[in-house]
Amino acid sequence: MTKLTPRSKDYSQWYNEIAQELADNSAVRWCMVIKPYGFAIRENIRDVLDKMFKNTGHVNAYFPIFIPKSFLNKEASHVEHFAKECAIVTHYRLMNDPNGKGIVVDPEAKLEEELIVRPTSETIIRNSYKDRIHSYRDLPLLINQWANVVRWEMRTRLFLRSAEFLRQEGHTAHASAEEADIEARKMLDVYNDFCTNFMAISPRLGTKPEHDKFAGAVATYTFEPMMQDGKALQAGTSHNLWQNFAKAFDVKFTNEKNELEYVYATSRWVSTRLIWGLIMAHSDDNGLVLPPALAPLHVVIVPIFKTPEELQQIKEYIQPLIERFETTKLDFHSKYFHDSIPLKRKIDEDTNKSPGRKFNEYELKGVPIRITVWARDIASGMVEVFKRELGEKSAIKLEEVDLHIDQYLYKAQNNLLKKNTEFRETHTFEVDTYEEFKEKIEQGFVMAHRDGTVETADKIKEETAATVRCLPFDLKNEEGKCIYTGKPSSKKVLFARSY
Amino acid sequence: MTKLTPRSKDYSQWYNEIAQELADNSAVRWCMVIKPYGFAIRENIRDVLDKMFKNTGHVNAYFPIFIPKSFLNKEASHVEHFAKECAIVTHYRLMNDPNGKGIVVDPEAKLEEELIVRPTSETIIRNSYKDRIHSYRDLPLLINQWANVVRWEMRTRLFLRSAEFLRQEGHTAHASAEEADIEARKMLDVYNDFCTNFMAISPRLGTKPEHDKFAGAVATYTFEPMMQDGKALQAGTSHNLWQNFAKAFDVKFTNEKNELEYVYATSRWVSTRLIWGLIMAHSDDNGLVLPPALAPLHVVIVPIFKTPEELQQIKEYIQPLIERFETTKLDFHSKYFHDSIPLKRKIDEDTNKSPGRKFNEYELKGVPIRITVWARDIASGMVEVFKRELGEKSAIKLEEVDLHIDQYLYKAQNNLLKKNTEFRETHTFEVDTYEEFKEKIEQGFVMAHRDGTVETADKIKEETAATVRCLPFDLKNEEGKCIYTGKPSSKKVLFARSY
Repeated sequence: MTKLTPRSKDYSQWYNEIAQELADNSAVRWCMVIKPYGFAIRENIRDVLDKMFKNTGHVNAYFPIFIPKSFLNKEASHVEHFAKECAIVTHYRLMNDPNGKGIVVDPEAKLEEELIVRPTSETIIRNSYKDRIHSYRDLPLLINQWANVVRWEMRTRLFLRSAEFLRQEGHTAHASAEEADIEARKMLDVYNDFCTNFMAISPRLGTKPEHDKFAGAVATYTFEPMMQDGKALQAGTSHNLWQNFAKAFDVKFTNEKNELEYVYATSRWVSTRLIWGLIMAHSDDNGLVLPPALAPLHVVIVPIFKTPEELQQIKEYIQPLIERFETTKLDFHSKYFHDSIPLKRKIDEDTNKSPGRKFNEYELKGVPIRITVWARDIASGMVEVFKRELGEKSAIKLEEVDLHIDQYLYKAQNNLLKKNTEFRETHTFEVDTYEEFKEKIEQGFVMAHRDGTVETADKIKEETAATVRCLPFDLKNEEGKCIYTGKPSSKKVLFARSY
Repeated sequence: MTKLTPRSKDYSQWYNEIAQELADNSAVRWCMVIKPYGFAIRENIRDVLDKMFKNTGHVNAYFPIFIPKSFLNKEASHVEHFAKECAIVTHYRLMNDPNGKGIVVDPEAKLEEELIVRPTSETIIRNSYKDRIHSYRDLPLLINQWANVVRWEMRTRLFLRSAEFLRQEGHTAHASAEEADIEARKMLDVYNDFCTNFMAISPRLGTKPEHDKFAGAVATYTFEPMMQDGKALQAGTSHNLWQNFAKAFDVKFTNEKNELEYVYATSRWVSTRLIWGLIMAHSDDNGLVLPPALAPLHVVIVPIFKTPEELQQIKEYIQPLIERFETTKLDFHSKYFHDSIPLKRKIDEDTNKSPGRKFNEYELKGVPIRITVWARDIASGMVEVFKRELGEKSAIKLEEVDLHIDQYLYKAQNNLLKKNTEFRETHTFEVDTYEEFKEKIEQGFVMAHRDGTVETADKIKEETAATVRCLPFDLKNEEGKCIYTGKPSSKKVLFARSY
């Protein structure tokens, strides 16, 4: 059984080895294959978020994958600041090579205007809103889309960065500036709810600094979780777009005073990058540790048997438990999620793998509970329960197992959140000098005064690799001096290194 | 209130008007926007099919949207016969126009090898299977993907044909030819289950003729539903790919005899085209008629009130009904679907629209049940129930409404299936002469002998617009003569005009 490279030895290599359980590089160098186990986590993330969005009044729709090149030109700051690395479709037909060498691009089939594979959908969606919005009665319009997007990343890493990735993007339209800002903040609250109560990660919330807003936004709100190495992950953002895209795409409505006005908009997204966060925040040297609220499999039962008769005896022995599992629902309720999740379980009867190999595999996969049953247990009425998050094994009475498991799953979820929260708290520092800053930034989040200029931010980044992650909502105003230039500052901000 | 163009006047125009409720053309000429109501139907289709697939042992995964051009060259008949109209990515970066005119394609950023936006994923998936499959113990591998695909269609029609569309594609690998063929047929049976019991459409099942198989397949199985004009819709296909793609991508496994062998494979898909089928099969001159098993909304309640107090009284009156609806589940069980569907309901309190406009809108949207409640109903203990499929209105006691509705929803589902089945049966003909053939093919499906050559098929198509839809499974062998050439034939086949 090969062991994982320990985190202490090579954190990056450790990640790559764990991620192999969930995804793989593909023949298209910049894109990944999401394997079934990884995709099952993504389905759980999608299903929970989808219900949360619907509970806030959103509906799903679908918009084209292609954006006409001219659309990107329409919103001035969008085109100026948006990364220009993207996949560009220039032709629409292949043909047989006249020299008989397979197929080639048909030079006759050149598009009049190039199409960009969507790096984000603001432009194409805003354009379609023009026909849907006429009066204040059509507002608010709250639409979400689950889609693949493409940004040409040369240095890829599974789930963190790849050319193609899967995400949701919410795009709303409102009758007033206030309502749009409330929406952008509310949807950040939804993300925070999901991150805290489902991913079991407690992020810091705040506003992105001016120079780091989304291209075309007047405010970008962000949630910033801390990973086990003290670095921040930019996990998702929510944008107040004001009337910028409405002006670019001429989306007007008649307000209650019967005046024609541009609509106010927001957009936001989270992506398969959340899976990267899940791994980096919780997993250990034995593999994945998954919060039960998002685990593809909650309980695996491994019967240990030498003959088919023994297997049959074990199956009869545990049958009452299996039946109770059938109807077990887990209640991971939260502010925006009011549903329950069925307990997912599996019996592994595979005779091609040794029990030891199975134990390793399920530990590596982060299955929260493993129940091992020997034929000899039948007489004693016990089974062995292994708890992944605690790393503990114990013998438990068969008839008590399901209640025990039920409680443990909530406990494991809470433990993970508690550990992440405590780690973040003990790795967050307030400093007043650049010396202190340079020391503490190696360990985690640092709150410090800065003068708010791009120049200072760039220099600090150059010298320490740290960036302003956000202006935290919960920090109070206080007079101070920029740690780098000594210029006045009215509030500390959150610095960290990030991925 | 504008009325729809009646089917009798212009079937095509009628479709376009109805489809507007569900989708729209987009700024990218060849792609559609799926509106929230249309997307809700697609979500229901996806959720049911996804559970069916999982019940047959499939798991979901995700593969890259891009296919290297060279991959399409690898399977000889795939490249030869597969349509070459597709979206081709040639560059990966935009740049600011040196002349200041917005953004242009950066000529330096040309890909070494062009990437094709997936028209189908056999090649990229088979290539990734190479690393996953080593021994017969790794088989069968049953993987499904929900994804967007692109085929460059110049003449688009909402849901029927567009460059981008959404679909599922199943890709399996097996240790024997027999097992692969059983899988391909079983998954056709799943499609048939879905089409019959959820879409309420009774298709004909069979094998595609040799010249109409999927490129790279040794057998293509198909289900062919009949639309209200007697034409067939190619709704979905299931392919036995034999070892063809395994050979092209060198996917081998060690069999139980310890010999190295190429794996056997199947693939299959259905797409958003099913929504086209739903509309064309059931809807009427008043709009959509949706089978309750797939309707986004089962019940809409329209309170009729003049004052907020009246609305409040009505809401109190119907409160017990609303509470019972909360827990109402619909059981559309079938061979491959064992779940229940929550009753989806809505109260429309919008004061901006007249009741008449609401009635029309929900009729147009095909909501199976509309409950209208006047303040005067409170004294009588009644409400008005309108049944979309029957087009009937009746007064029903409030306390009996939910039971009544429950029964009606199953009945409506059955009625739709019954109507479609009867229509297909009365519009299916057996003929022995070409004269008869030409007459009957105007009305529906025609079973006739043909000699099996491409030439004859082409001529019949040219003269009558009809094609061989399939060699139906349920037709018996019988000696006969080709209706066109008089050559011998051992079995009739199903001809129809199609979309």
